[in-house]
Amino acid sequence: MAASPRVGFIGLGIMGSRMAAVLRRGGFELTVWNRTAERAREFAAAHGAAVAERPADVAAADVVITMVVDAEQVRRVLLGDDGVLAGARPGLLCVDMSTIGPAGAREIGAALAERQVHFVDAPVSGSSPRAEDGTLTIMAGGDEADFARARPLFEAMGELVVHVGAVGDGQTVKLINNAVAAVNCATVGEALLVARAAGVDLDALVRVMGASSGASAMLALKAEPMRRHDYATLFKLEHMLKDVRLCLEAGEAAGAPFTFAAQAREILSAGMGRGLGDADFAALIEVLEGQAGRRL
Amino acid sequence: MAASPRVGFIGLGIMGSRMAAVLRRGGFELTVWNRTAERAREFAAAHGAAVAERPADVAAADVVITMVVDAEQVRRVLLGDDGVLAGARPGLLCVDMSTIGPAGAREIGAALAERQVHFVDAPVSGSSPRAEDGTLTIMAGGDEADFARARPLFEAMGELVVHVGAVGDGQTVKLINNAVAAVNCATVGEALLVARAAGVDLDALVRVMGASSGASAMLALKAEPMRRHDYATLFKLEHMLKDVRLCLEAGEAAGAPFTFAAQAREILSAGMGRGLGDADFAALIEVLEGQAGRRL
Amino acid sequence: MAASPRVGFIGLGIMGSRMAAVLRRGGFELTVWNRTAERAREFAAAHGAAVAERPADVAAADVVITMVVDAEQVRRVLLGDDGVLAGARPGLLCVDMSTIGPAGAREIGAALAERQVHFVDAPVSGSSPRAEDGTLTIMAGGDEADFARARPLFEAMGELVVHVGAVGDGQTVKLINNAVAAVNCATVGEALLVARAAGVDLDALVRVMGASSGASAMLALKAEPMRRHDYATLFKLEHMLKDVRLCLEAGEAAGAPFTFAAQAREILSAGMGRGLGDADFAALIEVLEGQAGRRL
Amino acid sequence: MAASPRVGFIGLGIMGSRMAAVLRRGGFELTVWNRTAERAREFAAAHGAAVAERPADVAAADVVITMVVDAEQVRRVLLGDDGVLAGARPGLLCVDMSTIGPAGAREIGAALAERQVHFVDAPVSGSSPRAEDGTLTIMAGGDEADFARARPLFEAMGELVVHVGAVGDGQTVKLINNAVAAVNCATVGEALLVARAAGVDLDALVRVMGASSGASAMLALKAEPMRRHDYATLFKLEHMLKDVRLCLEAGEAAGAPFTFAAQAREILSAGMGRGLGDADFAALIEVLEGQAGRRL
Repeated sequence: MAASPRVGFIGLGIMGSRMAAVLRRGGFELTVWNRTAERAREFAAAHGAAVAERPADVAAADVVITMVVDAEQVRRVLLGDDGVLAGARPGLLCVDMSTIGPAGAREIGAALAERQVHFVDAPVSGSSPRAEDGTLTIMAGGDEADFARARPLFEAMGELVVHVGAVGDGQTVKLINNAVAAVNCATVGEALLVARAAGVDLDALVRVMGASSGASAMLALKAEPMRRHDYATLFKLEHMLKDVRLCLEAGEAAGAPFTFAAQAREILSAGMGRGLGDADFAALIEVLEGQAGRRL
Repeated sequence: MAASPRVGFIGLGIMGSRMAAVLRRGGFELTVWNRTAERAREFAAAHGAAVAERPADVAAADVVITMVVDAEQVRRVLLGDDGVLAGARPGLLCVDMSTIGPAGAREIGAALAERQVHFVDAPVSGSSPRAEDGTLTIMAGGDEADFARARPLFEAMGELVVHVGAVGDGQTVKLINNAVAAVNCATVGEALLVARAAGVDLDALVRVMGASSGASAMLALKAEPMRRHDYATLFKLEHMLKDVRLCLEAGEAAGAPFTFAAQAREILSAGMGRGLGDADFAALIEVLEGQAGRRL
Repeated sequence: MAASPRVGFIGLGIMGSRMAAVLRRGGFELTVWNRTAERAREFAAAHGAAVAERPADVAAADVVITMVVDAEQVRRVLLGDDGVLAGARPGLLCVDMSTIGPAGAREIGAALAERQVHFVDAPVSGSSPRAEDGTLTIMAGGDEADFARARPLFEAMGELVVHVGAVGDGQTVKLINNAVAAVNCATVGEALLVARAAGVDLDALVRVMGASSGASAMLALKAEPMRRHDYATLFKLEHMLKDVRLCLEAGEAAGAPFTFAAQAREILSAGMGRGLGDADFAALIEVLEGQAGRRL
Repeated sequence: MAASPRVGFIGLGIMGSRMAAVLRRGGFELTVWNRTAERAREFAAAHGAAVAERPADVAAADVVITMVVDAEQVRRVLLGDDGVLAGARPGLLCVDMSTIGPAGAREIGAALAERQVHFVDAPVSGSSPRAEDGTLTIMAGGDEADFARARPLFEAMGELVVHVGAVGDGQTVKLINNAVAAVNCATVGEALLVARAAGVDLDALVRVMGASSGASAMLALKAEPMRRHDYATLFKLEHMLKDVRLCLEAGEAAGAPFTFAAQAREILSAGMGRGLGDADFAALIEVLEGQAGRRL
């Protein structure tokens, strides 16, 4: 491609604002839109970008990226009255990087395809520091040609970029990864509580496990926050719950059980009941402590 | 210590023979005993070591290491009629590196202490390749001075050596680690089956998860063997089941629940029912496939 | 009420046709509608009833009962283009006896209320033989006055009629009951498999448990069908799965965990994956047998 | 049998004292022994019975019944230094009605058989009121002829008496029943908490479920105590935990999973951690409340 594609970016939340900033640093020309217009103006002032009035107004770009909360919001900004599709010409490529589940992604992809707008679902793994560094993991589902068009953007934002299959498959991979993470995190939490009850030194336990068969990304990332009851948000418990639920729905649709994830979901539900939805999902330790009747 | 301690080594199975060989390469003088005497003679011929007729005959060493299957065997070789204690003088240090549970370790330590024989429980993490390379993780419970005496041996055999607390605490740490590993492995197994049912490319899934929040030692070590149904034994399913059961017993004794490990135990039990006790515990995928009604 | 209310009845499936017949025997005047018109004509011929062309045409009745499959169908027949609401006058009472979840019931109730149409949600417990005998259990949610209007109909169809709260609460009670039933059934299934593996006489076990603390409606109703692998449909596995899923969604919405039901759901999902959706939910024993690697 | 057998009765706790009193009312001549001699004397004064000084002294009876806490105690009173076996002649029949697990029963039966003493394991179901009324459920394992000898005693104490198989099988049936009861009880507890969180009337829920597919002995017996947090002991949580653990061990020995019971065990373990071991097992609701972060 001779010139960099012009990029429309919708959704400047914790993740989206960092991903858009990385694209800007990578030299891409941006037009941005955000539900709260103030944030879009701040972003534009800080990083240099055009601000669109309506989602439809970013459709003049070559590629439009959406990074919002759920399928409902993606539908609104892409397919709604003032949505991208309302301003789109055939050949536009929409890339949704939110986590919305495979059913939602396929339905949106089909709606766009009716108007010759292409679609790739490309959810990401990695919290805000990795969004900021452009070192996310990006798992993309869609046609080979569409993936190739989006690839330069993905490589700016991510360290590992994998084309995992057709539209919707990026979502499935993401959901499965997050469900596994939720299980591994809850398992570390229960393990710490057993160790505490048995009188074992937790520093030693974490150090040993980190070099043993019990090692996991969740042990490395969440054991300390759980021990300190520090839930500064990297990934909200509410969003983790949504992802585990969507994973179980995908499993149900495919007729495949995921019993460990089902347990994790109930723990996260109980976290919601405690009002911890906005806390980092490490806050699930509160539920496990409540069950055990013991603090870490 | 002016001279290297003379070491007695009891138990030359898959792990023990490799650990003893590493000690020999490290310059330690060895006297060995094994239930099947033939293996002791083969070891002696290959690596250079004295062969004892009875466990009691290794008690002339400064430190006696035991690496056998369960608490019953440790009791027999240390406390039985011909056991180490029968030949021991006050001040001998016994180091059990088997996985036998904290209750067993404490009971054996107490029996030895009555006769002024010291005891450290020091189970290991890592399969036979790491035993062979001297890169095990070693988690030791016992008095500070006893740990210091055993340390040179531990450092020959292990890459990470951690003093985790009093006698029995090494066992607790080991059991908790293995229970977490069993959960993480079974979770990877279920995740692969959901992905297969949903039509997702498994190579892509494993690659993405390995760089994401779902990463774990078990994903790295067991996803491929599970996919290939290759159960060449690194760690027997039967032994993993024993460890998870001991972990749950330790949890029960401390009044602490470990719900995820409890699920993993039932899966391993069903593996025993299928005659997979001698296979590597990756064979638990057979149980998950049976539940899902679908092969990977 | 001087005269019996005229009743509109929508949905003449396995349950609905029997419930409508009971009302007819009880002297109520019926107008019926069914998606497959042929079944409505057959019912009318057999039991005596007027046949409506469209759902809107039953709205002349005093009370309209719906007994269909899910919220989507209730919405269509009540709120759709040709739906009951299109023909309704203020004061009409709609009673939905399907199992559609509390969220669906509240939403439909609210839509009807905007047009002064009253609503009671009144799901039932009991399979087709009890529908035929008029001995269902009926749990109704709605205003006291609306419940009183519907009561004569409920008492014709049911043996136990309970007003459980506001609109939607009937659904919640129903879902919780069914989720408990699913757990109890799966627990009986696992218990039978443990007994078989341990070599215990299953007749003796079932007889003893039936008189002991392990007794349950599910033991009485499903132990024999599971033992015989006889899945003649009383309540489809697919519908049980739907109910357990809706119960977990209601739990999640309320921030309350239901870990046992979560396990049951995964077993039912695996039953769907085996193509058992149309079988009675006793077919979940197939999943448990697959997990155990052993037939009953 | 011309005359009633003379009966030795060992263990006059909450259950044993009531069972012995029922035998006495049934006209059986009793010799009793209890660890705390005072209770034996009180029983003798109240009901009329000879008091033995040592377990060995009851061995002159035709049948000796033991009703104690665990396998360890059965071993002591039957096989210990002053135990029944020390005073027994060939042909004596020992009937153990404690819950000790199949492995313990088989081992004890084998030890007695070496000295031509017969053995039947006959655990009971039913709490103290049913022991008092002689309406227990009795599940007996042993030879047909031994069962026939014990039958008159069983029929005095029980309403339902079932010969379930060989020595040890009575235990297996008992453990499976109790494990099912533990699951059903915990499931009722979670169901009540979901209902409370969803704002449903609990009286209505319990009433409806009692007449529906969610009905169970545990719903009838434990819903109200759990709602009132009334844990007056009918069956101690500690003993229920022991039974569920023994059931899981029997399942593991047979290679059969029991995933629901495994979850129940962890809840009971957490109850022990809260110091509720002596409370009725309905106290498991405290653990579920801790998990849910909400009181009933």
